[in-house]
Amino acid sequence: MAVYTDVSSDALDAFLATYDLGRLRSFKGIAEGVENSNFLLQTTAERYILTLYEKRVDAGDLPFFLGLLDHLAARGLTCPRPVANARGAVLGELVGRPAAIVTFLDGVWIRSPEPRHCGALGKALAGLHQAGADFPLARPNSLSVEAWPALFEAARPRADSVAPRLTADTQAELAFLREAWPADLPRGVIHADLFPDNVFFLDDQLSGLIDFYFACTDAFAYDLAICINAWCFDPTGRFQPARAAALVEAYGAVRPLDPREIEALPVLARGAALRFMLTRLVDWLNVPPGALVKPKDPLEYLNKLKFHQTVSSAAVYGAKR
Amino acid sequence: MAVYTDVSSDALDAFLATYDLGRLRSFKGIAEGVENSNFLLQTTAERYILTLYEKRVDAGDLPFFLGLLDHLAARGLTCPRPVANARGAVLGELVGRPAAIVTFLDGVWIRSPEPRHCGALGKALAGLHQAGADFPLARPNSLSVEAWPALFEAARPRADSVAPRLTADTQAELAFLREAWPADLPRGVIHADLFPDNVFFLDDQLSGLIDFYFACTDAFAYDLAICINAWCFDPTGRFQPARAAALVEAYGAVRPLDPREIEALPVLARGAALRFMLTRLVDWLNVPPGALVKPKDPLEYLNKLKFHQTVSSAAVYGAKR
Repeated sequence: MAVYTDVSSDALDAFLATYDLGRLRSFKGIAEGVENSNFLLQTTAERYILTLYEKRVDAGDLPFFLGLLDHLAARGLTCPRPVANARGAVLGELVGRPAAIVTFLDGVWIRSPEPRHCGALGKALAGLHQAGADFPLARPNSLSVEAWPALFEAARPRADSVAPRLTADTQAELAFLREAWPADLPRGVIHADLFPDNVFFLDDQLSGLIDFYFACTDAFAYDLAICINAWCFDPTGRFQPARAAALVEAYGAVRPLDPREIEALPVLARGAALRFMLTRLVDWLNVPPGALVKPKDPLEYLNKLKFHQTVSSAAVYGAKR
Repeated sequence: MAVYTDVSSDALDAFLATYDLGRLRSFKGIAEGVENSNFLLQTTAERYILTLYEKRVDAGDLPFFLGLLDHLAARGLTCPRPVANARGAVLGELVGRPAAIVTFLDGVWIRSPEPRHCGALGKALAGLHQAGADFPLARPNSLSVEAWPALFEAARPRADSVAPRLTADTQAELAFLREAWPADLPRGVIHADLFPDNVFFLDDQLSGLIDFYFACTDAFAYDLAICINAWCFDPTGRFQPARAAALVEAYGAVRPLDPREIEALPVLARGAALRFMLTRLVDWLNVPPGALVKPKDPLEYLNKLKFHQTVSSAAVYGAKR
């Protein structure tokens, strides 16, 4: 949850004057979004989200993110759509930061997903992968297998203070994944962060996907593996096979998985667990004084990793050849 | 800014089922309100604020706060109005906390107030004091002159690490205020925390007052002194006489100040500055690990206190006999 930058009413008025959105009625910081400052902007006409991109987002990536949202929305995916200002630009500047306005999406995120929610997620994820197929821009995944050793180096000196043997276990996993990571899977635009709080539901129907600021070009099945990690464990850390089966089956009904993707799923799930364990570990060990965001527990993902290490076949996730 | 407690969709659905508000469309944590968890709740019919009262609010005070909002709204003051559930109660329970739903107010708070905003504030503050005159409940001000010595005790061991001579200066001020504090001023319900972020404007017109969770029974002129502190200094800490004059004059045009109130204003302004310096100091020295809220700087109010100590007459604030 976060608002890192406050916006004066004068600065906001000047920024909004470059748009044609109606008169301002309300402007509130939202306690969501770890990377950026988000505000709910209500005008006489509509509701919007105003985002100020803080330093963790590379400004050079913004044309990819905003272009992708526009591309996906044009293909019928329900996601925030960037709003152009009077000069036709979707990217502006406010309080010295890159800033954009997108449409507001109704919906509520599900704190305790059931298999039916995971099924809706699988369908939407496959739809996202299909809708992104002809998106012309590309963005490498800067948080994939090649990046993980360097990420761990940032945490290594104090890693064992977080969990016993964490250094040795992580190094063994890094070595395993370097060898086992599949290189030739079908790829395209993936969301790469489709956690429950980025998926809205209305009356039990999936109503939209948000927060595309980790989107990149990578293996489709890796996106599915991220969702297995994020959606298919209960709060005590126990794997929920019915959720995973609903997710994987619904995905496959829209975009059938090929045999190499199915075979790779356990390795991809290990990689996804390690990726979130590592970024959380680095954040955990580097909470700045006066931090506005409570760091997330890396051990949650260490436990998920340990589960995936016991998985010998994608059938555990409900994937059928 | 804060959301201290997350609310699951199931718990929210069960809570909302006790109300008649239409179907849920959106539910977002708001990065405002230091004491409680606030959510913007949008239904098919309307927008509301859902507040979960966290431990800093005494549950026994909630009937006073919610009753006051209802009382003021019924008298035409634009403030959030508590919404009753199907059983007629305005106070419920959610995630183990007292919880209430109030109406949503349009408007934007002014980051850099001009004299015209201070004039609108003065008029609204006097209107609030008048509208509260026949409110039947009372609540002592637990953060007034009797409470300040104990508050300072909580900070004293490390006070001088925040500013040189802070202990000696504060003790001298406490002794002065104990003697000089006026006891016989006109009193009634005051807001006691009417900072700029609690006052909304729309198109330069004051559109509403929010956050009544420090409201209590105390001297009206003390509320005015709090506003002088909160509204009439620029970001570098310089007193802005035109703002204070606009505030005091507009207040007096609605509710004329009596000569004792005018005479007491410099002492009340010192007390108000000390009160916010002390609570900020205690928070500053006691930031819990994983804090979600950045503590506010106590020195801002130490500087304001030092200004008021130089004031020999309420004429400095624009108050005329």
